[in-house]
Amino acid sequence: MVNVGINGYGTIGKRVADAVSLQPDMKVMGIVKAHPDYMAFVASKKFKIFISDSKSKKLFEDAGIKVEGTMENLVDDSEIIVDATPDDVGKLNKPFYETHKKKAIFQGGEDHDLTNLSFNSYANFKDAWGASYVRVVSCNTTGLIRTIFPLTELGKVRVRANLVRRATDPNDHKKGPINSIEPDLKIPSHHGPDVRSVIKDLDIQTMAVKVPSTLMHVHFVNVTFDKEVSRDDIIENWRRYRRLMFVSGKDEVKSTSQLMEIARETGRMRSDLYEIVLWKEAISLKGSELFYYQGIHQESDVVPENIDAIRSMMQLKEKEDSINETDKSLRIGELAYGR
Amino acid sequence: MVNVGINGYGTIGKRVADAVSLQPDMKVMGIVKAHPDYMAFVASKKFKIFISDSKSKKLFEDAGIKVEGTMENLVDDSEIIVDATPDDVGKLNKPFYETHKKKAIFQGGEDHDLTNLSFNSYANFKDAWGASYVRVVSCNTTGLIRTIFPLTELGKVRVRANLVRRATDPNDHKKGPINSIEPDLKIPSHHGPDVRSVIKDLDIQTMAVKVPSTLMHVHFVNVTFDKEVSRDDIIENWRRYRRLMFVSGKDEVKSTSQLMEIARETGRMRSDLYEIVLWKEAISLKGSELFYYQGIHQESDVVPENIDAIRSMMQLKEKEDSINETDKSLRIGELAYGR
Repeated sequence: MVNVGINGYGTIGKRVADAVSLQPDMKVMGIVKAHPDYMAFVASKKFKIFISDSKSKKLFEDAGIKVEGTMENLVDDSEIIVDATPDDVGKLNKPFYETHKKKAIFQGGEDHDLTNLSFNSYANFKDAWGASYVRVVSCNTTGLIRTIFPLTELGKVRVRANLVRRATDPNDHKKGPINSIEPDLKIPSHHGPDVRSVIKDLDIQTMAVKVPSTLMHVHFVNVTFDKEVSRDDIIENWRRYRRLMFVSGKDEVKSTSQLMEIARETGRMRSDLYEIVLWKEAISLKGSELFYYQGIHQESDVVPENIDAIRSMMQLKEKEDSINETDKSLRIGELAYGR
Repeated sequence: MVNVGINGYGTIGKRVADAVSLQPDMKVMGIVKAHPDYMAFVASKKFKIFISDSKSKKLFEDAGIKVEGTMENLVDDSEIIVDATPDDVGKLNKPFYETHKKKAIFQGGEDHDLTNLSFNSYANFKDAWGASYVRVVSCNTTGLIRTIFPLTELGKVRVRANLVRRATDPNDHKKGPINSIEPDLKIPSHHGPDVRSVIKDLDIQTMAVKVPSTLMHVHFVNVTFDKEVSRDDIIENWRRYRRLMFVSGKDEVKSTSQLMEIARETGRMRSDLYEIVLWKEAISLKGSELFYYQGIHQESDVVPENIDAIRSMMQLKEKEDSINETDKSLRIGELAYGR
């Protein structure tokens, strides 16, 4: 039983905390919250609460939230920390984990060189074996790797991907854009280099726009193979990967809002959709060029990767066993319709 | 002075009517409206109103709108009709224009084979010379041709474009999506073949998604040249074309909403932006591969093409003279900042 500490309880932290709780081989020792807000109160019903600054102890207690200790206490209690603090804060926390000789997982908001080891369960599970510091790549990058890695098994590929990014997460009431389309003027966008932090030497270029939606990202992906492949081979190979799912407009699944409705119908916690979605009829092969769309639930797709990263770093289970265990616990694959 | 009839007074019809009024060599004989709604009342302050069905005459008169006659009367009065009726209605009207031996321009909502002559001012002005029936391609296709045609002057190109389409026009209160991203599951989307209706034999593939915005479309464009070109050559060549404009995030123009704000500041009628917008710093050349974003004001970019099509079909002016006249009347190019 591995003792896991969760530092940060935002979009990713709260999901990873619940996912860890579902595993037979790991346990949540507590979560770190900076402020005694409503979400801290909700968290306190499930997890021990630790605070990032001991000075805020009274504020938490005044709010009726029991404080177990400080971040330092949680780090002492844990064998591994999942750092799900805001972008670039993980970097500030790393020396602290080092001082306390504790392993840590960081998220995609940190740079690759914080750990020099970026992670995706399919692509490089074993690279993290026994490692002390690992970065789980971002939601978009995870989505790209989930579909591209299986394609690299069929031949050498050249990838051109354009990302239509959701503006912000559903709970965010402040950010935009609303009624505007905002291109990322830096080409390539950071996603291409980020994919290469896992799949080295991949020929990939990415561009991205932000659009007024909160539900999911959608990617346009164009992949050129260096040899002849068939559409059937591609689909059969993707089918081997449970964290991909196929949908069809024929079944009235034509948009991200309908995908989210399917997720809600599953009864999964928070109506999450961990799987990367492929629209089957839009998977098109013209010569050696493949075109497809994929849908990414930005809030949840990296959750299974965080669990597998813990197993690899703690040397708990081999790749396939870890993925199977994670997927079973999160019920990944049960939505696989018409596979 | 060419007598022009405008059949249909929606997004395109009303703009073309005003643009024709600004030309020294043409005149609006009237517009056709089907229903006596508020927009018919607004139109009646500027144009003679003709009705598509004589039975509705009383309805118009009860609404205080003077009716000059039927569509047939307008067609008789005109030398050329701009048909700006809804998608696929132009097809039903064409036999009527033929019977009356009148030339007609159709819009991008009709199929290419209705006229077998699809039009863009830059790419094939002279093909429409003296022609009886011409189709001006849609807003997205016009936008693609505006930037791609100049690139074909530099070498043979292969184009992969992904379109992020606005959900619907600003005046539409019924259509979606709101808070959803909707891929066009037919690959290629109709835009690629549509570009080829003007630039024959072009190697182009397109995909498209619809997003919750009403202001403008944004395209991701990836163009591979068959030979070495420089970024400077590309930009210099684009600069020769007044219906393209460059903007920069450095000047706080990072989104379609900011582009529309610029258009509003010009004092142009309806705050229209006829120019296709290129974000300058995002124009990236990697080897022989060019990447860029372009912004398209879907309501207005085809308006200058309709005017030029009239001139070519009526043999009024040669290409450059027509484009210059049109652009001067619509003040196209005056926004050209930092060219």
